[in-house]
Amino acid sequence: MTQNDTIRRIAGAVKADSFKMAALSGEERNAALRKVAAALKDREEEIFAANRLDLENAEKVQLAAPIVKRLKFDEAKLRDVIAGIESLTQLPDPLFKVLLDREMDEGLHMKKVTCPIGVIGVIFESRPDALVQIASLCLKSGNCAILKGGSEAANTNRILYETIHKAGVEAGLPEHFLTLIESREDIGALLKCDEYIDLLIPRGSNAFVQYIMENSRIPVMGHADGVCHIYVDKAADMSIAAPIIADAKTQYVAACNTVETLLVHRDAAPALLPAIQKLLSGEGKDAAGKTFPKVELRGDEGTQKLIPCLAAEDADWDQEYVDYILSIKLVDSLEEAIDHINLHGSHHTDCIITEDEAAAEKFMMLVDSAGVYQNISTRFADGFRYGFGAEVGISTGKLHARGPVGLEGLVTYKYKITGKGHIVADYSEGRKAFHFKDF
Amino acid sequence: MTQNDTIRRIAGAVKADSFKMAALSGEERNAALRKVAAALKDREEEIFAANRLDLENAEKVQLAAPIVKRLKFDEAKLRDVIAGIESLTQLPDPLFKVLLDREMDEGLHMKKVTCPIGVIGVIFESRPDALVQIASLCLKSGNCAILKGGSEAANTNRILYETIHKAGVEAGLPEHFLTLIESREDIGALLKCDEYIDLLIPRGSNAFVQYIMENSRIPVMGHADGVCHIYVDKAADMSIAAPIIADAKTQYVAACNTVETLLVHRDAAPALLPAIQKLLSGEGKDAAGKTFPKVELRGDEGTQKLIPCLAAEDADWDQEYVDYILSIKLVDSLEEAIDHINLHGSHHTDCIITEDEAAAEKFMMLVDSAGVYQNISTRFADGFRYGFGAEVGISTGKLHARGPVGLEGLVTYKYKITGKGHIVADYSEGRKAFHFKDF
Repeated sequence: MTQNDTIRRIAGAVKADSFKMAALSGEERNAALRKVAAALKDREEEIFAANRLDLENAEKVQLAAPIVKRLKFDEAKLRDVIAGIESLTQLPDPLFKVLLDREMDEGLHMKKVTCPIGVIGVIFESRPDALVQIASLCLKSGNCAILKGGSEAANTNRILYETIHKAGVEAGLPEHFLTLIESREDIGALLKCDEYIDLLIPRGSNAFVQYIMENSRIPVMGHADGVCHIYVDKAADMSIAAPIIADAKTQYVAACNTVETLLVHRDAAPALLPAIQKLLSGEGKDAAGKTFPKVELRGDEGTQKLIPCLAAEDADWDQEYVDYILSIKLVDSLEEAIDHINLHGSHHTDCIITEDEAAAEKFMMLVDSAGVYQNISTRFADGFRYGFGAEVGISTGKLHARGPVGLEGLVTYKYKITGKGHIVADYSEGRKAFHFKDF
Repeated sequence: MTQNDTIRRIAGAVKADSFKMAALSGEERNAALRKVAAALKDREEEIFAANRLDLENAEKVQLAAPIVKRLKFDEAKLRDVIAGIESLTQLPDPLFKVLLDREMDEGLHMKKVTCPIGVIGVIFESRPDALVQIASLCLKSGNCAILKGGSEAANTNRILYETIHKAGVEAGLPEHFLTLIESREDIGALLKCDEYIDLLIPRGSNAFVQYIMENSRIPVMGHADGVCHIYVDKAADMSIAAPIIADAKTQYVAACNTVETLLVHRDAAPALLPAIQKLLSGEGKDAAGKTFPKVELRGDEGTQKLIPCLAAEDADWDQEYVDYILSIKLVDSLEEAIDHINLHGSHHTDCIITEDEAAAEKFMMLVDSAGVYQNISTRFADGFRYGFGAEVGISTGKLHARGPVGLEGLVTYKYKITGKGHIVADYSEGRKAFHFKDF
C-alpha cells in the first residue's frame, strides 16, 4: 500500500466517523471538551517537556526569533487554551438550530436545521496553540478534523494531539474524531481526497494557500493575501488619523489585518503626511509619549513632494509587506480611493478616516471587502475582537463565511421534511395546493 | 485583441458596474424589475417570432422532442415569467439586512449587513425562460450577471436579453448589469476570470458541471449528480410506499430529484416488491386508476429471487439514470441503508418510508444530504415547492447554500464598524476592554 493509499484509507475512516459525530448531543460534545481541558492540565509537564525539545531543535537550526516565539508553549499558553476550551463549552450549541420551521401543506412539514459540515482539513503553521484551538472548535461544532501542523512544532503537536485524542475517545467520541498528519508529503494526498474531506482551512503563507487552492477540488476557506488600506479623507479628524495609521501598521506587523497602503486625499496630505512621517521615523512619539518602530515609507510622486520617502513602484500597490513598510498614494477623490482599493486590495479589511458621514457610508457600501471601517484601526479584524469567542481564520472569499470565522462557519444545514405519503403529482396536477405557514 | 482578451475586458467592466449595482436601493431594483416585466409584455410579438425561428431550426436539425419542448417560449411561458418577476418585486429585499448589531465598546459599533455577491456567471441549457428567471433573481439581489445560454435558443435568448437589458438601463441600472455571451468558445475564457467573477452557477449535464468545477478557480454552486434514494423500512406503511416510489421515479424522469435506487429492508421486501413490480410494469394502476410508464427494474440477488427483473451491476449503485430505470437492493438494517446512501448517493435528496419515528429521526440525522425526507416523494426537492418563490438551482455542496437555492444564496455580508479613533494597542495593553452588547 502506498502512502497515498494510506492517507485515502484514513480519510475514508474519518468520513465514516463524521456521521457518528453528527449524532452526538451538545452535552456530549461539551463533556468531551471538559475532559480534554482536564487532560491537558493533567499532562502539562509532558507537554512542556515536548515543547522544550522543539525549542532546542529550533535553536540548533537557528530558526528566526518570531517563529521561535510562536513555537513556545508555556504555562501562560496552556492556561489560555484551557480557558478557551472552557469558554467554548459555555457557548450555545451551533448544531440542531432550526433556521426555518414551515408547514408546506396539511401533514407536510419542513425544518431547515443546522448540522456539521463533516470532515475539515486544517493545515497550519508553527503555533501549537492553534492545534488545540482548532481541534476544540471542530469538536464543539460536531466536525471531524484532520490536522497537519508545522514540523518545527512536531513534538509539541504530537503530545497535544495524543492528549486531546485520548481524552476525547474516553469521553465517547469516535476513534477518528481527530487525526494528526505529520509528514509534509501527505498534504498532496490529502488534497485529492475530495470525496472524504468537505472543507480545507489552510493557515500559512500566501504561496502556500495559493498552492492549496490550485491543487484541490475541495472548497477552501481562508485568505491568501491581506492587502489592507486606510483612506484619509479630506474631512478627516487629523488628531485620530496618525495614531490609527501607526497602530494599524505597527501593532503586530506580521498579521494579515495590518495596513499596507495609505491613500490620502490631496487636500489632507500637507497636514497629514509630515505628522505620519515623524511618528513613524523611529523617533516620533504620540500624545501619550509612546514610541513606534521605524517604518519605511514608499510614496507616489505627490507624496515624495511633501515628505522624504522612497519612490513607490507599481508593484507596491499590490503587495502584502508583512513588514515595517507602508506605501502611500495621493488621490483626488473618495471615488478614486474606492476604485484603488477594489482593484488592488485583497477584500480583507479597509478603513476610511473621515468625519463626513455620507462619505463614510459610500465607502462602506462600495468597498468590496469583508470588513469596512470608519475611524478605527484595521487591526480590529479578528474573531476575538468581534466577540465571536474564537476564530478558525479570516475568510476573504464571499461564499459561506466572510471575515473572521467563528463556529457558525463550521456548520451547514439540511432540510428535513416529513409527510404522510405526499406525492408531487397531486400538486402538479392541481388536486392539492401548497399552503405555506411558518412557525 | 484576442477573443479571450475581449471576454476579460467585458468581465472587468461587469465587475466595475457591480459596485454601482450594490449601491442601488431595493425600490430602485424593484422599479427596474417592473420595467423589465412591462418591456417583455410590450415586445411579445418579437419574442414569439424569434422563438419560432429557433423552433424551425430545431426541426431542421431534428432535435429530440424533450429539448424542443423546453425550447418553446409561448404565451403561457411569457405569462409565467412575467408573473415570476412580479412576485419577485413583492419579496423582501435580501440586501441591507442587519444580521448582527453589536456595540463592541463605547463608541465602537459593528453591523453585519447583507450585500450582493458581485458578479455571477450562469451557464444554462436550452430553456429561454431560465434566462429571464436568472436575470431577475440576480437583479433583485443586486448582482451583475453574465449569462451563456444554449445555442438552440440563440434567437429567443438574444431578444429576451436585449429587452431586459434595454429596460434595465432605462430604469437606471448600470450598462453591464446583464451581459449575454453567445459563443461556446467563450466559456473557457470566462472560467479564467476569477478576479472578476465571484460565483459560477452551471445548469447542465453532469459532465458539463464537472468540467466547469475542474477548470475554474471560481467557486461553483450547483450539483453534478442527482442520485437520490428511497429506503423502505421494515416499519413502513406499505399503502403509501408504492405510490411514493412511482411518483419519485416517473413524475418527471429527467429531473435531478428523481429516485434512482430503492433500498428495501429484507423484512419488507416480500410484500413491497411485487406491488412495485406490478405498478411499474406499464400496465399497473394505482388506487385512483392512474397508470404509470413502464420502468426497467435492476435488482440485486435478493430482489431477483422475489420479482422478475434484470441483474443490477456494481455500477448501478452510483448511476444517475435520468431515465425509466430503477435499481433495487435489499438491506438488513437501517444502518446498512444509511451507509449505502452516504457512500453511493450524491448528497441531494433521500427519503425513508417508515412509521417508526426513532428510525426516521436516525435516518434524517445521519444521511448526509441536502434533503432528508420521511414518507414523501423525493420530487419535492425544489425551490418553488419549498416556498422560496424561485430558485437559482439546487446545491449539493455543503458550503454557502445547500439544497434549493433562492435569493438568500445570491447574497453575502460584510462587517461595517465605526469608531472614534479606536486603536488595538489600547485593548491589547489593557487600557481598554471590550464590552459586547447586541441590539
